[in-house]
Amino acid sequence: MLLIKNVLHQNRITDILINDGRFAKIAPGQSVAGARIVDGRDKAVLPAFYNLHSHAGMSVFRGLSDDKELFAWLNQDIWPREAKLTPEMIYLATRFSILEMIKTGTVFFLDMYFEQQEILKAARQMGVRTVSALTGLDLFDAAKTKTEIEKIEKYIACGEHDEQCLKGLMIHAVYSVSEELIRYIVKRAEENGYYLTLHASETAKEVEDCLKTHGCTPIEYLDRLGALGPKTIVAHAVHLTDSDIALLARKKVPLCTNPVSNYKLASGLFMLQKLQKAGCVLTLGTDSMASNNNLSMLEEMKLCALSAKIQSGDATAGNAEDVFKMATVNGARAVGLDAGEIAEGKLADCILVDLNSHFLVPNYNLISNMVYSADSSCIDTVICNGRILMQNRHVDGEEEIIAEIKKLSEFFRN
Amino acid sequence: MLLIKNVLHQNRITDILINDGRFAKIAPGQSVAGARIVDGRDKAVLPAFYNLHSHAGMSVFRGLSDDKELFAWLNQDIWPREAKLTPEMIYLATRFSILEMIKTGTVFFLDMYFEQQEILKAARQMGVRTVSALTGLDLFDAAKTKTEIEKIEKYIACGEHDEQCLKGLMIHAVYSVSEELIRYIVKRAEENGYYLTLHASETAKEVEDCLKTHGCTPIEYLDRLGALGPKTIVAHAVHLTDSDIALLARKKVPLCTNPVSNYKLASGLFMLQKLQKAGCVLTLGTDSMASNNNLSMLEEMKLCALSAKIQSGDATAGNAEDVFKMATVNGARAVGLDAGEIAEGKLADCILVDLNSHFLVPNYNLISNMVYSADSSCIDTVICNGRILMQNRHVDGEEEIIAEIKKLSEFFRN
Repeated sequence: MLLIKNVLHQNRITDILINDGRFAKIAPGQSVAGARIVDGRDKAVLPAFYNLHSHAGMSVFRGLSDDKELFAWLNQDIWPREAKLTPEMIYLATRFSILEMIKTGTVFFLDMYFEQQEILKAARQMGVRTVSALTGLDLFDAAKTKTEIEKIEKYIACGEHDEQCLKGLMIHAVYSVSEELIRYIVKRAEENGYYLTLHASETAKEVEDCLKTHGCTPIEYLDRLGALGPKTIVAHAVHLTDSDIALLARKKVPLCTNPVSNYKLASGLFMLQKLQKAGCVLTLGTDSMASNNNLSMLEEMKLCALSAKIQSGDATAGNAEDVFKMATVNGARAVGLDAGEIAEGKLADCILVDLNSHFLVPNYNLISNMVYSADSSCIDTVICNGRILMQNRHVDGEEEIIAEIKKLSEFFRN
Repeated sequence: MLLIKNVLHQNRITDILINDGRFAKIAPGQSVAGARIVDGRDKAVLPAFYNLHSHAGMSVFRGLSDDKELFAWLNQDIWPREAKLTPEMIYLATRFSILEMIKTGTVFFLDMYFEQQEILKAARQMGVRTVSALTGLDLFDAAKTKTEIEKIEKYIACGEHDEQCLKGLMIHAVYSVSEELIRYIVKRAEENGYYLTLHASETAKEVEDCLKTHGCTPIEYLDRLGALGPKTIVAHAVHLTDSDIALLARKKVPLCTNPVSNYKLASGLFMLQKLQKAGCVLTLGTDSMASNNNLSMLEEMKLCALSAKIQSGDATAGNAEDVFKMATVNGARAVGLDAGEIAEGKLADCILVDLNSHFLVPNYNLISNMVYSADSSCIDTVICNGRILMQNRHVDGEEEIIAEIKKLSEFFRN
């Protein structure tokens, strides 16, 4: 049991009791025998962040190659190095990404990469939640389709799976995965009750190519193959037609926008206001350290809000409240978590922010301050599932985690 | 004298001696009697930031009103409250803004507001550099023109002026200042050797209105009144014609882009790549806490780089190195400071960043990490003019400065 004493919650000072991984009681003046006390004075409690799109294993590539055109970047710098990643390296890189997520207030990440059992291991050790989606990617090569299917079956069969750290599957994209493999992944995800995720309509070229090849947009093509539904999280979704939007809204498909990555690779502008008006489910993600270059949902929220205004030409678009919800409760619900809000009965995920940080002063509107002003230095404490992952800005073992990545980066330097 | 020992500088470990406000010697293994030692181990030295556009006195309005259309925001929320600001309040608000600048690595701000002598006082006390430009704003009211001229003369006559904290003048904008007052300000700035600054071509509407009223763009109109030259810093410069651009390049007019503010108010996208190719002088600023909502040049650099890519559709635009220069050496030079680079003989302004911060690991490219990954938590030490303003992330007196603003914000809450 944890008892957060004298913390600011919705403009009032109160106490919050956490028991059995859930917020048990929110009321001032509590005193509970045996509860560990967390001093909430001069702090406010807020939901933690849910990052709906990451490739945590790419953290060893941060800063290695920037300001390049997408395919030059992938071909020259990223893919040759990814080929050298071992499972152990992916484990270390993921652990480091999780450290950065905790430091920036995130307790969940929907991750898609290779060697996903390593990611589950790292998430479990660090105490965060994850859906770890194994990426299917066959480049239309029949031999590769077969080995991808074997990998998927091996992953489904492996024991690494619990309530906090779930397995999932991913379709890399319509331009890189064969119809056969897409159909297979959709079927196996459904049979196993897994969340499915994919990249779609990230660039204008992807949509053009799909129109040429399949006579329809990537969204329509994916729908035709049965891939779209409330358990399929579509990342990017930048270049959408009106009929794509109507389809995504009707099928309640959660969309995950990654504004920093879309800007950095010059992919395009997410139509936040339009999608919101159409009733789409909107969530937020950071993409990887190679295309961002950090995993801060604070920075992602700020650009998400700013970009919505520029894209629509309307300064009222992407308001702070809505964007904060995208990063918290919307993300949690999209992956079936009864979390993302500080309320009795909800899963006990939260952050405590330092109200004496200059970034949070004046405090007319805490949500505005979080979206437009705060950086990671404001986040003092991170709690996931009732367990303290960071307190006083320190995460157990962080020095060693960072040292390992410094060492590993020497291997990839050239 | 300060001696920074064992610090990373351009990929080598070295010592840096600071004497008489300048970098005196950069070489390893120095030992200097009487020098105060700064431990540079696990830190890198970099130029500090020069913020070329701020309204520091507006810090009491952070988070008070967001996500609004520009004129509703000004009329309903900002202007009625600005009318209540006393000189003492502007002093406190500016001191708080300077605290946030130091915390985020900035040592210079080109400020434009009212009661500029209060701003000079705050800057001098906090140890940063400033050009404090008194804003001329008469709204085409002849009586107001007269009182503005009186204010300007009073400011010019006042004693508050030294090498580190300079006086300057500002023309608010072509839509808010009469031709008579513009000509007066231009003349008095020139006669006193002052820097001049102004807002221009911030919104499409401003350009349209100017075309209707004066038959030319704001840039052409300002040029006609003699306002443009290498000592006039033009803020925003979003909506420019090709002939505006050629004129600004030819006259060597420093432009200051404020991407966060331009996004937040849906003003438009700065054409970084195009202006760079035309040979324009480019610098960076944060604008105020009311339209940003913080003063972090780190966040400003990131959006500056990202926005250049989206605006041009070219991921190679706005590369990290160029944007870092905009925030450092370009800004310093634009206001006549022999600073912005870590080199012998230059003014001793610098920051030390923590190479053990997760945001700066791996360290393949420190400038990329600063632009795309770092937040304020990476900045350990800030030095301006050879004087330490922050060490170990602490600024002397910060608690009291923050407490004063908390108190003051109660006055503006309703």
